[in-house]
Amino acid sequence: MIEDVPELKTAVIENFGTPCAVIDLDVVERNIEKAQARCDNAGVANRPHIKTHKSPKLALMQMAAGAQGITCQKLGEAEVMANAGITDIIIATNLLGASRSGRLAALQRRLPLKVCADNPVSLTEYSKAATQAGRALDVLIECDTGQQRAGVETPAEALALAEIIKADPMLNFAGLLFYPPVDGWPQTQIFHDEVIAGLDDLGLSATIVSTGGTPNFVNIDKLEGSTEHRAGTCIFNDLMMVEAGMATLEDCAFQVYTSVVSRGGTERGILDAGSKTLTADTGGLDGYGRILEHPTARIHKFAEEHGFLDLSKCNNKPAVGDIVRVIPNHVCVAVNMVDQLVAVRGREIVEVLPVAARGKLV
Amino acid sequence: MIEDVPELKTAVIENFGTPCAVIDLDVVERNIEKAQARCDNAGVANRPHIKTHKSPKLALMQMAAGAQGITCQKLGEAEVMANAGITDIIIATNLLGASRSGRLAALQRRLPLKVCADNPVSLTEYSKAATQAGRALDVLIECDTGQQRAGVETPAEALALAEIIKADPMLNFAGLLFYPPVDGWPQTQIFHDEVIAGLDDLGLSATIVSTGGTPNFVNIDKLEGSTEHRAGTCIFNDLMMVEAGMATLEDCAFQVYTSVVSRGGTERGILDAGSKTLTADTGGLDGYGRILEHPTARIHKFAEEHGFLDLSKCNNKPAVGDIVRVIPNHVCVAVNMVDQLVAVRGREIVEVLPVAARGKLV
Repeated sequence: MIEDVPELKTAVIENFGTPCAVIDLDVVERNIEKAQARCDNAGVANRPHIKTHKSPKLALMQMAAGAQGITCQKLGEAEVMANAGITDIIIATNLLGASRSGRLAALQRRLPLKVCADNPVSLTEYSKAATQAGRALDVLIECDTGQQRAGVETPAEALALAEIIKADPMLNFAGLLFYPPVDGWPQTQIFHDEVIAGLDDLGLSATIVSTGGTPNFVNIDKLEGSTEHRAGTCIFNDLMMVEAGMATLEDCAFQVYTSVVSRGGTERGILDAGSKTLTADTGGLDGYGRILEHPTARIHKFAEEHGFLDLSKCNNKPAVGDIVRVIPNHVCVAVNMVDQLVAVRGREIVEVLPVAARGKLV
Repeated sequence: MIEDVPELKTAVIENFGTPCAVIDLDVVERNIEKAQARCDNAGVANRPHIKTHKSPKLALMQMAAGAQGITCQKLGEAEVMANAGITDIIIATNLLGASRSGRLAALQRRLPLKVCADNPVSLTEYSKAATQAGRALDVLIECDTGQQRAGVETPAEALALAEIIKADPMLNFAGLLFYPPVDGWPQTQIFHDEVIAGLDDLGLSATIVSTGGTPNFVNIDKLEGSTEHRAGTCIFNDLMMVEAGMATLEDCAFQVYTSVVSRGGTERGILDAGSKTLTADTGGLDGYGRILEHPTARIHKFAEEHGFLDLSKCNNKPAVGDIVRVIPNHVCVAVNMVDQLVAVRGREIVEVLPVAARGKLV
């Protein structure tokens, strides 16, 4: 919550010190329910992306709320989630390092994974990993319809990959993975329809057609043929989501509690949270996060362990020793800095959640 | 080393996958010796800042090479280093969170620490922590001579803090901590001399006068009265140090091995290392790191797990499946992303070093 609760700040600093990464479980639960309802209302399955929280407990809460399965971005994340008992996992990227190190095969031996590819090299590696595992891999083809991120850029390329998958007994064609630009759903429909027609000619069908992204909740019912949606950030939200109109400050479940540790002159202040806590990722916004207690104080620069405040527009300036709460611009990378999240409910600390899938590079 | 060794790349990906954070121990040892020699030649003690590597083993190598002690930026880092047997530790920041959580007192009970302050609130908290510990704390006064980071901005403020320390039986005045701008050593000398004269009037003397920063090695003998220097980045170096003229690419001991996982069109490529591996910290440089195999390929943007390449100036373009090595702009924040460093010597992997002090927020 965004209400200032002095006794909660005192409890956080006395039990954990500062800086401290805190999540409000009431807000988390509300956000989980809202995402599920958005998918339910659109008639698509919910497959939350766990890259945002990297916590098995929170993933299990998403499953309990009705999610079909989860999305991971790393094999190491999938390992952690599989250990927590989650069995329906898409890993939404070309996995070359995990394939060549044998870890993909090891996990595929334990449970059937769904992996993604946008090129033949990935398919070759997947085929080897599946052979090692003794179990065919389900493969989705990643398609780029304007983001200029990963993904094949034409239906013809998608169909060429589908043919390779079809010809390989160790690979099963499982569907298509899209991450459409927010304003790019019409062209995604055209791309999708052309691929589906081509697949039909090949005798293949897409069991899964996945769309993604929290900002794309506004479009969730707009792709005819889509079967599921994967969104990550919406479990916590952040200033980027507020800026995108997808959340209010009250919907931001993650806050960094930080102490004002220094004041240099009348216009300057220093927090004990810097780029090693909040990260240098601005998400395209101005400054490095919003201080709830001092919205006109601007975090204008970071050292590794310090956040530098410009207080020139701040009538009520913070004092050394004050504890303030910062909502980061981009929560996914901020959570990725910490080994644990302190969970609160209302005015009380209730538990500590390990960010168990953090640091899983592969 | 920067020579391309295909069998080392294969060994890294087959044993660890990609991305993988690798350090070359031959280069590390050379860098440690060079820093020690620079301090020895200037007649000041060497107190390396371990924030760069966060590894007890590397800290012990620095001690074995002749370091007087170490510098930490976090109480949590000092805990890890104390557990490794290092006893002479300066924590170079205002420790409010660690004081109020009781962790400063707990460590001070085990070994006498040196802490820093630039304001009276920190001194009050230190006095309480020292009382809890049953042992007086050594305190350095942090002085700002132009960086606009932490530190008192005038000699008068420094002396006011010295008086508070003098009056408190649980605090010992230990000296002064400077981080002069590279071109700001003359004004630092003036500041220093004025404080020393005032301290003399108070009957106090500065046992330690510490300067800091790898780029400041060029100035290391320029502050009359300085007793020691703390530098962090020089153990690994990075593109910022190359840009500052403090290192060559051959002196950069840390590299991220990463796979080319996708190629979108002729001018684009994607690495499996993004902002969750290399961080969004540009260090003021263009792009997000240098690819040794393709110096004209520009990492122009990150997603969380992807680095996006502009290959338009690249004659010899990388292919999907290639493993390339990236030297980051800012190594301190890149090391802070990973739980372990794979250590190589020449053409062989020799060990895995835990980044044991990573994630110690407090």
